[in-house]
Amino acid sequence: MSSPETYDIVIVGAGPVGLMLGTCLTRWGYRIKHIDNRPEPTATGRADGIQPRSLDLLRNMGLKRKVMEHDPAKVYEVAFWDPNSKGIHRTGTWASCPKFIDARYPFTTLLHQGLIERVFIEDIEKNGGKVQRPWTITGFKNDGVGSHPVEVDLEHVDGSQKETVRARYLFSGEGARSFVREKLGVNIRYKDPIAHVWGVMDGVVRTDFPDIKMKCTIHSDAGSIMVIPRENNMVRLYIQVASSTDPDWNPRKTSTAEEVQEHAKKILRPYTISWDRVEWFSVYPIGQGIAENYTLDERVFMGGDACHTHSPKAGQGMNTAFLDAVNLAWKIHHVEAGFAPRSILSTYESERKLIAENLLDFDARYAKLFSARIPSAGEVAGASTTSMEENDFIKTFKASCEFTSGYGVAYNPNTINWGPDHPAQHALILPYEKGTSLRTGRTLHPATVTRVVDANVVHLEQEIPLNGSYRLYIFGGVPSKTSTAIKDLATHLSNPSSFYSAFAHPSIPAVDRYHEPHNPHTDFLSLCTILNAPRAEIDINGMLPPIFSRYRDHVYADDVWDQRVPDAKAAAHAKMGLSEEDGAIVVVRPDGYVGVVVKLVEGGGTAEALNMYFQVVTGRRLGDERAAL
Amino acid sequence: MSSPETYDIVIVGAGPVGLMLGTCLTRWGYRIKHIDNRPEPTATGRADGIQPRSLDLLRNMGLKRKVMEHDPAKVYEVAFWDPNSKGIHRTGTWASCPKFIDARYPFTTLLHQGLIERVFIEDIEKNGGKVQRPWTITGFKNDGVGSHPVEVDLEHVDGSQKETVRARYLFSGEGARSFVREKLGVNIRYKDPIAHVWGVMDGVVRTDFPDIKMKCTIHSDAGSIMVIPRENNMVRLYIQVASSTDPDWNPRKTSTAEEVQEHAKKILRPYTISWDRVEWFSVYPIGQGIAENYTLDERVFMGGDACHTHSPKAGQGMNTAFLDAVNLAWKIHHVEAGFAPRSILSTYESERKLIAENLLDFDARYAKLFSARIPSAGEVAGASTTSMEENDFIKTFKASCEFTSGYGVAYNPNTINWGPDHPAQHALILPYEKGTSLRTGRTLHPATVTRVVDANVVHLEQEIPLNGSYRLYIFGGVPSKTSTAIKDLATHLSNPSSFYSAFAHPSIPAVDRYHEPHNPHTDFLSLCTILNAPRAEIDINGMLPPIFSRYRDHVYADDVWDQRVPDAKAAAHAKMGLSEEDGAIVVVRPDGYVGVVVKLVEGGGTAEALNMYFQVVTGRRLGDERAAL
Repeated sequence: MSSPETYDIVIVGAGPVGLMLGTCLTRWGYRIKHIDNRPEPTATGRADGIQPRSLDLLRNMGLKRKVMEHDPAKVYEVAFWDPNSKGIHRTGTWASCPKFIDARYPFTTLLHQGLIERVFIEDIEKNGGKVQRPWTITGFKNDGVGSHPVEVDLEHVDGSQKETVRARYLFSGEGARSFVREKLGVNIRYKDPIAHVWGVMDGVVRTDFPDIKMKCTIHSDAGSIMVIPRENNMVRLYIQVASSTDPDWNPRKTSTAEEVQEHAKKILRPYTISWDRVEWFSVYPIGQGIAENYTLDERVFMGGDACHTHSPKAGQGMNTAFLDAVNLAWKIHHVEAGFAPRSILSTYESERKLIAENLLDFDARYAKLFSARIPSAGEVAGASTTSMEENDFIKTFKASCEFTSGYGVAYNPNTINWGPDHPAQHALILPYEKGTSLRTGRTLHPATVTRVVDANVVHLEQEIPLNGSYRLYIFGGVPSKTSTAIKDLATHLSNPSSFYSAFAHPSIPAVDRYHEPHNPHTDFLSLCTILNAPRAEIDINGMLPPIFSRYRDHVYADDVWDQRVPDAKAAAHAKMGLSEEDGAIVVVRPDGYVGVVVKLVEGGGTAEALNMYFQVVTGRRLGDERAAL
Repeated sequence: MSSPETYDIVIVGAGPVGLMLGTCLTRWGYRIKHIDNRPEPTATGRADGIQPRSLDLLRNMGLKRKVMEHDPAKVYEVAFWDPNSKGIHRTGTWASCPKFIDARYPFTTLLHQGLIERVFIEDIEKNGGKVQRPWTITGFKNDGVGSHPVEVDLEHVDGSQKETVRARYLFSGEGARSFVREKLGVNIRYKDPIAHVWGVMDGVVRTDFPDIKMKCTIHSDAGSIMVIPRENNMVRLYIQVASSTDPDWNPRKTSTAEEVQEHAKKILRPYTISWDRVEWFSVYPIGQGIAENYTLDERVFMGGDACHTHSPKAGQGMNTAFLDAVNLAWKIHHVEAGFAPRSILSTYESERKLIAENLLDFDARYAKLFSARIPSAGEVAGASTTSMEENDFIKTFKASCEFTSGYGVAYNPNTINWGPDHPAQHALILPYEKGTSLRTGRTLHPATVTRVVDANVVHLEQEIPLNGSYRLYIFGGVPSKTSTAIKDLATHLSNPSSFYSAFAHPSIPAVDRYHEPHNPHTDFLSLCTILNAPRAEIDINGMLPPIFSRYRDHVYADDVWDQRVPDAKAAAHAKMGLSEEDGAIVVVRPDGYVGVVVKLVEGGGTAEALNMYFQVVTGRRLGDERAAL
């Protein structure tokens, strides 16, 4: 009998979490077995909200344009409707991503899950991968044997074919009913005892309700409804059919499309509504639960709905799934590429489970707002002005907006997110609000700069694609002032024992990387240099040492005015809270979260601090200059 | 013998001008015979520059995204290099579309013609049309007989098939060697006696020349070269091989790829350059000529290179072709739809020939700049600051930038572009700088506003797609102040004899236009209402009469701050130079050029002035309220 086929990873499930993971790892060259038990991608309905931070991520993968081709609906504001004597009236609106959040795309993008799935599937296929359908998983074990310790049994859903393969990793993106989770014996903990039965309907309507193209929360004496606009002139209605707080609570309670429509008609009075067509209708119970573990052995992982279930109202499901997958993808990549110790894999659960806990807390709060608290117009207006009076409700709203936009997602300090207890302690490391407004475990602020080589005005945070590499941003301050510091940094990074050089591509055999803009010298990192000078005055070869000028496509002039820092000369420096004169070095993780910020000074200190951080991150001894010489 | 097939139009040639015309007319429902004598679209090389105004147009057609999918190069700045003792040095750079031009996309987009052609061909096919290849025209005549007075003889290029068809119109987009032009006996007038032989080479290079990703004009003692970046990491070089001002001028002079490369190497010293691959190379003579007529009978038309040939340096060929086609397309549509008298067709030649004349003048000036005048860094710097000292050179540059960006294109007053000699004279018509900063025959200024129904932040100038309709912008000022004026306007427009009502869709048979956002009541016009109020305060049904609220997807809040009018409360009103309190009505032609601006006042005056204008435009008696009642 021949030995089983081997794969780097077996991915079970081709929903958002499985597809994001598969897309990343396929792009980065891994061999993947990807199965899904459905014969086709999602045809209609299901999750549909892409939050601002997720749109950043899709753009970073070059997939935003493909999503936008479908002309999704964009939600900029949420409207609140409350009962009055005539039926309902609008009490206020607020921004879904208010101005106090510095988002490049301050809106939620609504598009049905199937179209989004197809964008990923196309990308996987373009890169030589595929999703095998309809196949399912029937067994697995991690026997610890060899380089591919996980054995996985797969089967066509009709039982006609079976296959056993071996893999380095197994990932369950199976959704709420996860075979893998069950087999592992991992429990779902229900944090909030309140459960709900939801009715959801997508369709094309005729109505005189004025906010039908807005996201709306409508409370009336006849019940509550949530309205969400969709692509193709459709609208989604969410109606709570039953709640465990109801006196006659029954989790199996159901409702027909006609009943939901009649219910909606009553809620919307005095406005009228009728349906030209119904595209999708479903009634399903939702509990708010979270898996106790995301992995037991750091070989078999789970993510997405397999780990957390919650109500659909805040549109977080797909977004959480995306970010689960990206978080895991780069860590697996770094372990397999030799850039990180296996221990980094433990941060997948610790980072992502915290987010899921926050999501469930938020979901519970949101449910409470939805069903109980009705904000007054005055409170709502206050939330979008600067002179806001921060009562509890507005505070909750504000925190929620940050969270739902995806920018409030914050990873706690650990080995990769520097903090006061991090093993790397160096006087040049800049903590939050002491020399920088960046926070470790959060995304870089968006900033618009001018690319020097072609004078294109670009979004700095998007300049390095999602390539699995750390992102080293050299904010160079004023070149005449920092030229020695930059030269000294280059000198110390050129030392073979530095993090910069330790992972360099082998020079033999020589691969021609002349036209490679992002990873010319290593896959471990990509590098951007941002100088506080007008573009025309920046002479890349004259101002930068060769190891930095080699990244000539990633040299930027910080010369674009920004409304958020109107008095700054170098707006990108200013937005990051860095000295416009002296600059600093910002290390960003491959998934876009800040790892550490280090002062840029003359001498060896900057390189030393960076080496200390990367020594912890990579598990390698770095920066011992004498040893290496 | 059966009678010949009939078409609305026969289009000969599937280059930019033919494809743009075919795309518009196919979308608007016309029956088209479209042939091209090449077996395939352009494979490589040829024209490639999309100017800012053309990009607006492509976006307005929903085609910009398709173009951008190919990741074209974007030129924001032009660099000038001059000889010095070491070889060459940069003397300065300037913006290709400087800030004094209010452009939504202030850059030139570079993509090879074949990819652009494919975008149009896909659109034509999506709408049920096709381009028949390789077929050619062998004869035609306008015998004035019947509804399809033009007989056209067509033939497969291998002579195997022939077909004679009849059409309402014939269009030649054949390029410089136009059978139709020759047959009509229309001469090309060579305005500038200087002719050139050009070498052009597309390829991937290795070089230490720092501006290889910029558009550059390089003068060295070894000759001159123009560098233009391209998609796929390519660069185009233009090298003048011979000029009629040379002592040994020979229009048949040629050059090999190797000779051009050697020449380029000498010009670029002290920098080095080598080619990884050459994608396309061609040497061709260029004369600067213009056809004496674009049509003789307003049945057989020509456009694009068939009417004007010039040097490729300013990248205007494709852009002029696009605008020729759009100009003709809507006029044919309006004649055939009964919206305009046939006499409107004469404005195609008068408007577009003037542009071609300007282009040739510009081309001659530009050639002179290219081969003679070398701007100093000081002059160049001056041109992009507000405190500019306007010497002759900067003036020329400034005028050129406006022209090359496409925003300097201005049509003279005629029946459709109101002016002091227009037959419609009414006290409420606002001339340029007397109540508006808009100029007839020029495009609307770009303005960002909030769409009321969905709170989306949108580009007002893009909100009505290129649908062949006039665009009526009701800048409504402050609603509390203008409510009576708006109501009065609605009352008068509701009169059956108004331009608004005269072309209304017949009410029987009733077609369901509930979901039609742009043309719910007529194909003659689309309508936008822009109010000086925060979005949340705009109650569409409460504030607007039904004939305006019917266009509910086109109601906007003028509440987005604009850096160009930082003190304005209603930036869109302010940018158009209109009263932020009182507003005004702006009529824009279907191709995006302002037709007339009329004050918004209480009573019947506003409608009266608009009816006077449209009476001239449409050739119908309009606005005679008593007659109609």
